[in-house]
Amino acid sequence: MTQSAIAKETNSATSLGESFQGRRVMVTGGLGFIGSNVAKRLVDLGANVLVVDSMQPNTGCNYANLRGYEDRLTVHQFDLRSCDESPDLFAGCEFIFNLAGSVSHLDSMTNPIGDLGANVHAQIVLLDACRRYAPDARVIFASTRQIYGRPVRVPVDESHPLQPVDVNGINKMAAEAYHTLYHQVYGLRTVSLRLTNTFGPGMRVKDARLTFLGIWLRRIVEGDTFEVWGGHQQRDLTYVDDVVDAFLLAAITPTAQGRIFNIGGCSPVTLLELANLLVAAGGGGRYEIKEFPPERLRIDIGDYFADDRQFREVTGWTPRTTLQDGLVRTLAHYRLFLEDYV
Amino acid sequence: MTQSAIAKETNSATSLGESFQGRRVMVTGGLGFIGSNVAKRLVDLGANVLVVDSMQPNTGCNYANLRGYEDRLTVHQFDLRSCDESPDLFAGCEFIFNLAGSVSHLDSMTNPIGDLGANVHAQIVLLDACRRYAPDARVIFASTRQIYGRPVRVPVDESHPLQPVDVNGINKMAAEAYHTLYHQVYGLRTVSLRLTNTFGPGMRVKDARLTFLGIWLRRIVEGDTFEVWGGHQQRDLTYVDDVVDAFLLAAITPTAQGRIFNIGGCSPVTLLELANLLVAAGGGGRYEIKEFPPERLRIDIGDYFADDRQFREVTGWTPRTTLQDGLVRTLAHYRLFLEDYV
Repeated sequence: MTQSAIAKETNSATSLGESFQGRRVMVTGGLGFIGSNVAKRLVDLGANVLVVDSMQPNTGCNYANLRGYEDRLTVHQFDLRSCDESPDLFAGCEFIFNLAGSVSHLDSMTNPIGDLGANVHAQIVLLDACRRYAPDARVIFASTRQIYGRPVRVPVDESHPLQPVDVNGINKMAAEAYHTLYHQVYGLRTVSLRLTNTFGPGMRVKDARLTFLGIWLRRIVEGDTFEVWGGHQQRDLTYVDDVVDAFLLAAITPTAQGRIFNIGGCSPVTLLELANLLVAAGGGGRYEIKEFPPERLRIDIGDYFADDRQFREVTGWTPRTTLQDGLVRTLAHYRLFLEDYV
Repeated sequence: MTQSAIAKETNSATSLGESFQGRRVMVTGGLGFIGSNVAKRLVDLGANVLVVDSMQPNTGCNYANLRGYEDRLTVHQFDLRSCDESPDLFAGCEFIFNLAGSVSHLDSMTNPIGDLGANVHAQIVLLDACRRYAPDARVIFASTRQIYGRPVRVPVDESHPLQPVDVNGINKMAAEAYHTLYHQVYGLRTVSLRLTNTFGPGMRVKDARLTFLGIWLRRIVEGDTFEVWGGHQQRDLTYVDDVVDAFLLAAITPTAQGRIFNIGGCSPVTLLELANLLVAAGGGGRYEIKEFPPERLRIDIGDYFADDRQFREVTGWTPRTTLQDGLVRTLAHYRLFLEDYV
């Protein structure tokens, strides 16, 4: 039996349930897109979930993301930069899914100090608080492919040089390095996952601030034309349920501790192929191809897709949702709930 | 003629003088060890020098470092985090030698937020101010070998992975990345120099807070025994005059802009060999070999020495001071001026 096969057997859906049943869990950034999906899954698995979110404007933070779960978890509005003043938050906490942070590349360029506060200062305080108040907790950090910058080779594996092309990338690189450092120096059980484009119910669709796909979805649902900038760039995408699987598996796999992994997903597609898949998933729709706006072009990364074999090998993770199915489900969500997101 | 030979011819001492005569120059961290040596050389070359220093306690900042030059340059006490409120500082500034920052590995571990403020927040504000108020200035940044962490191979070239092993290393890594980013996105003329152990007159000798060699020098001058921790680690060292050369050459070499270079120096020596050289240079002295203190060991980097061929090739730089001569000159300085530094 290969290590991967053993991991798959060990990390079945059943063991995931047993792993979190009755356990005290914190989800930072838990009102955001991925954080809320992690939180809801953990509730379903019987965990005692505390959501911490600073509820900053213009982020993915949205109460609608916890619809139907409001009474089954606790939400605490909190800026992580002062979490060291609240040891109670950490009492008995066994898992910290750390998805707090700012993710807008463009905003980070206009407000680098704000991005530094949200992505580095807050993470240092959190890690230092963990070290003191929850030294045995598993901490799973949402890192990003953005820290690689413009790839010098694809697929990108974890040894690819880090050459971030925007402020957000630099700050996330530093935040990830802090997680590794706190493992090496203090033995904190951290894992960092470098996510690629994640999509699904709960993503921000109001505008193009966080992701191009969000505004595409909104336009399709509203029957409007959406814009494809460029079109030939290759990307891989991960459906959010599969990203949630990755976070949970990273948390329960001892051999993942202290490590950094890429999380990929579907086979790479060009943005044009993705636009056509979205139109097909939506049963119609139109797009226009436009040139890249200059303020975006200078921080664009060209082609990216991940080599995520290390994570699959160590944890047994494999994405379960095809790109087509994911797009259909995402559109279905926004056809029902668009007004909560615009 | 090779590129290096051309660079050497172009970058002679004469052209250095012509390059800075009458030019407006800012030196951040200019009361510190390397910064003050850069500032004094620039005064000697006829530049109009503004020293900016936040004068934080427990840094290398020391007014004695500018002895004899007090009336030939301007010193401005200033926290760079608010330099964007003073556009006048940048008016007409053609060169910014950027040596501000905290360099204590150990302090960074006990006060990571303080280190973040000094090494990242301050640098972002400075770069953003340069972009607006001195967009044509050359900015030469003092980076550090610390960002490589524990080398996976020696000699270390610039493509070696960045795996900082302490908070200071992470923050300096981020600060360096900001310099590269501001070049790529805004065309700012930045160069980053990854320095190894620099020594010479003006270095902090009060304690072992910043460098082991400082306290060795003090003990020799005071006739006391010094401690060698470990002893077999290999290091390269650069005499401060040669580091000053490197900063000036980086500033006047157009092909260096936007790039990152290692700065090495002498052939690598073990700490024991260095201790013996120091005793010989001092005409006597004693040391004891001790085990590494645990709080240092966990952030120690093992062997390090640089491959700095890229910088030599591009700028024609070559170190002019042998390790032996450098130690003799440094001891001579502290035999005269020790009381200013303890």
